[in-house]
Amino acid sequence: MHGTATPAYDHLHALNLRLHRLGHLAAIAGWDQAANMPPKGNEARAAAQAELAALMHGMRTDPALAEVFARAGDEPLDAGQRANQAETEREWRLATALPAALVQRRQLATARCEHAWRQQRPANDWAGFLVNFREVLAVAREEAALLAEQSGLSRYDALMDRFEPGMRSVTVDRLFGELRQWLPGLIASVVERQRTRDAAAPPLEPAGPFAVDAQRRLCDQVMRLLGFDFDAGRLDVSTHPFCGGVPEDVRMTTRFRDDEFLGSLMGTVHETGHGRYEQNLPRPWLGQPLAQARSMAIHESQSLAFEMQLGGHAGFVARLAPLVSAAFGPQPAFEPANLARLMTRVKPGLIRVDADEVTYPAHVILRYEIERPLIEGEIEPEDIPALWDAKMQELLGLDTRGNFRDGPMQDVHWPEGLFGYFPCYTLGAMYAAQWFAAMRRELPDLDARIAAGDLQSVFDWLGERIWSQGSRWSTDELVRRASGESLNPAHLRAHLERRYLGQ
Amino acid sequence: MHGTATPAYDHLHALNLRLHRLGHLAAIAGWDQAANMPPKGNEARAAAQAELAALMHGMRTDPALAEVFARAGDEPLDAGQRANQAETEREWRLATALPAALVQRRQLATARCEHAWRQQRPANDWAGFLVNFREVLAVAREEAALLAEQSGLSRYDALMDRFEPGMRSVTVDRLFGELRQWLPGLIASVVERQRTRDAAAPPLEPAGPFAVDAQRRLCDQVMRLLGFDFDAGRLDVSTHPFCGGVPEDVRMTTRFRDDEFLGSLMGTVHETGHGRYEQNLPRPWLGQPLAQARSMAIHESQSLAFEMQLGGHAGFVARLAPLVSAAFGPQPAFEPANLARLMTRVKPGLIRVDADEVTYPAHVILRYEIERPLIEGEIEPEDIPALWDAKMQELLGLDTRGNFRDGPMQDVHWPEGLFGYFPCYTLGAMYAAQWFAAMRRELPDLDARIAAGDLQSVFDWLGERIWSQGSRWSTDELVRRASGESLNPAHLRAHLERRYLGQ
Repeated sequence: MHGTATPAYDHLHALNLRLHRLGHLAAIAGWDQAANMPPKGNEARAAAQAELAALMHGMRTDPALAEVFARAGDEPLDAGQRANQAETEREWRLATALPAALVQRRQLATARCEHAWRQQRPANDWAGFLVNFREVLAVAREEAALLAEQSGLSRYDALMDRFEPGMRSVTVDRLFGELRQWLPGLIASVVERQRTRDAAAPPLEPAGPFAVDAQRRLCDQVMRLLGFDFDAGRLDVSTHPFCGGVPEDVRMTTRFRDDEFLGSLMGTVHETGHGRYEQNLPRPWLGQPLAQARSMAIHESQSLAFEMQLGGHAGFVARLAPLVSAAFGPQPAFEPANLARLMTRVKPGLIRVDADEVTYPAHVILRYEIERPLIEGEIEPEDIPALWDAKMQELLGLDTRGNFRDGPMQDVHWPEGLFGYFPCYTLGAMYAAQWFAAMRRELPDLDARIAAGDLQSVFDWLGERIWSQGSRWSTDELVRRASGESLNPAHLRAHLERRYLGQ
Repeated sequence: MHGTATPAYDHLHALNLRLHRLGHLAAIAGWDQAANMPPKGNEARAAAQAELAALMHGMRTDPALAEVFARAGDEPLDAGQRANQAETEREWRLATALPAALVQRRQLATARCEHAWRQQRPANDWAGFLVNFREVLAVAREEAALLAEQSGLSRYDALMDRFEPGMRSVTVDRLFGELRQWLPGLIASVVERQRTRDAAAPPLEPAGPFAVDAQRRLCDQVMRLLGFDFDAGRLDVSTHPFCGGVPEDVRMTTRFRDDEFLGSLMGTVHETGHGRYEQNLPRPWLGQPLAQARSMAIHESQSLAFEMQLGGHAGFVARLAPLVSAAFGPQPAFEPANLARLMTRVKPGLIRVDADEVTYPAHVILRYEIERPLIEGEIEPEDIPALWDAKMQELLGLDTRGNFRDGPMQDVHWPEGLFGYFPCYTLGAMYAAQWFAAMRRELPDLDARIAAGDLQSVFDWLGERIWSQGSRWSTDELVRRASGESLNPAHLRAHLERRYLGQ
């Protein structure tokens, strides 16, 4: 009966499943490329991935689908099917939005820019970078104009909507505008407070080296503590850590240095948040857009829930400390209180990816305030350095003049043409704080539970409210259903103030 | 001009390239499944591989291709293109030969039989095995009948032709018939000779344990010694060692036990032979059938050239010995002469995959003499055990009555429906001996070169005569061009007699 009453929907359902299965191979091959592939495999791998991508693109953009979507709209679908059909249509619109020639130009421009950037960044060669970056930006603006025309959104919003459906710059302006009011003051207070405390009694530094084997085992243990299912995923090593693979087989990566272990440990905690979201997306819908993660900010909210909300939590650190001691042998620096101090050190710095949770939003606000007008055509690439310098001074009190390498050239996003992505990081931090605020309202003893080693309450809450919901609801509805209110940046502020200025 | 004078050929060329690229992803995902995949990934991986396989099968069997092949036949192709077109057509004929329903029945029957066999074999449950095996055989016979009808070959030959194009059972009968004349006598002489020598002075047994890390490094070193390009391949661990991946990125696997190292070391040497063949197939033709390995026997001749011809060679063992000592610390058992004795021990046994190079052909002859009449309908599955017992007694002097587990149930080939494959192993051993005989004629100082550590002469010969030729020639022509004569089993006999009965 299902097969007869909704033939158009069934057609879309089957197509989604085929794309999911082919996408599985692309995901595993992509992970392999980062984690295993020897250098001479690169060209053949790129050709193989491009072949499959073209094939999948052809399946996604089949002109006959317009008619199928129209017919599915008239079919008697239940609420889940309706939501799935809407998500399928959203993906189809994005896939068909851009002419092939533009997609190819983007591919060429970003590949050239990123490739050159790998040499230009260490050489601090801003002028050289600009040559390629202008073309990347030109393509991105064309893309944005086309998407804006089709969606009725502003150009920047049309780009951001690909990563964060439903989010608009008017909202980001309001959220980040609020943040901008109190963040520099908070940073100053925290830095001063930590300076005073450190002057009286500096935290103890762990003494290395930290054997990579021991770090690897420690990461495995902490992933188990965080509920990662090793029967449905792995941890491997790659230059740039990521969480890839497929929901049925999550492939996380990290990297190790033997003079430092907190970086890869907390990086692993971060990726485990992504990994558990993927491992716990709604099984009955797997293979359908409905079973995909809701958005990049929601994804980031899971990694930051693990890395920041749990990661710096005194109760969680108390669970971590004995594992660290067991891994490397006991040291006074591994005492829970000292470890917690190390994990919550705040220091304004030039590099976003090295930033702590207090200063991180400043890096994101700065980028958002530059890339939005850049896409809207209000500023040009030449204007970036002066804006960057001014905003770094304003937000973090740092002088970055002439240092392009650790300034506007530090991230891969712009060379890759990824405009509209940066806000997701800080939206994710806000969501993560909001999840924990909601959990504490519902479970007043949450912190005691965590301190007692009961992380299951956290996993249950996230699993029920976020992971298992996939893309069933719009982001705003997901957030309201999960936490009782729309995104509210007050929770991030309260979290930071309590952790960094509380007693 | 090329694009206009030969449009049909160009079409086939482009199709081959697309299939090669998609096959790349299937190969890497297949390797990953064996080497990395956690258990819960299995179902999704199988579905993904099946989806891609169906898609590729559709591309390969597009009915419009018949017309393209017809037109390509009239186009002005050069000799290489003509050979490539012929190989492409051969693959197309194989892909289109069987109706989809039969392919699906085979898939189901072999999956069921193999799955049950994994439990039935340890339980020695021949009766249970027969239930599923009858269906596997029924499907294989149907397949053989269809292929025979289309090709004009006998049924068994039609199956064998998929693995060993051009080889016919009349030839195998002759080759194996000769072997049968002298092999049992040779085995008896060698066993007696080794017994006498061992009684006088038994070889020293290496003392374990052998750390897996050290074994892993040793395998890496030996692969480098054998010229494996680690920039275009890897060695990993899997339950069943194999050589997979793609020519541009060869993925070899091995397995380690800490109480024994020669097994995985020589297994790695074996797979390195396969690996170097793949890594050195003709680059300009890569992606075309012309650039594929000629046949399974020729492939096996490369692994056996490495494992058997080089592996037991006193000169080569002298190069290996210091690496073994360095890996595990010196032991008297690692002296070259002792190591060579360990590596050339001959002992008739029940298990094919554990057999030495002298007794191995007996296992293959036995299987060939059973599976050929089985496919031709001259015997039935019920007849196997008695035949097996009789032939084991005849060829190896072993009593196997009632031991199905280590008898006809020991190999995965029959449960998987792989009939016509077994002869390739011993044909490969014959080819390998023939290569070295030809090398010695051309390079009279070959053995001195090997003893002096010059393996390059061997690699150059194989590279020029075999690897770089891909599927340019029929197997017989390849063999004649490489060695000056058609396959001649006298070389295997001479090799075994010299190594095992020489002074």
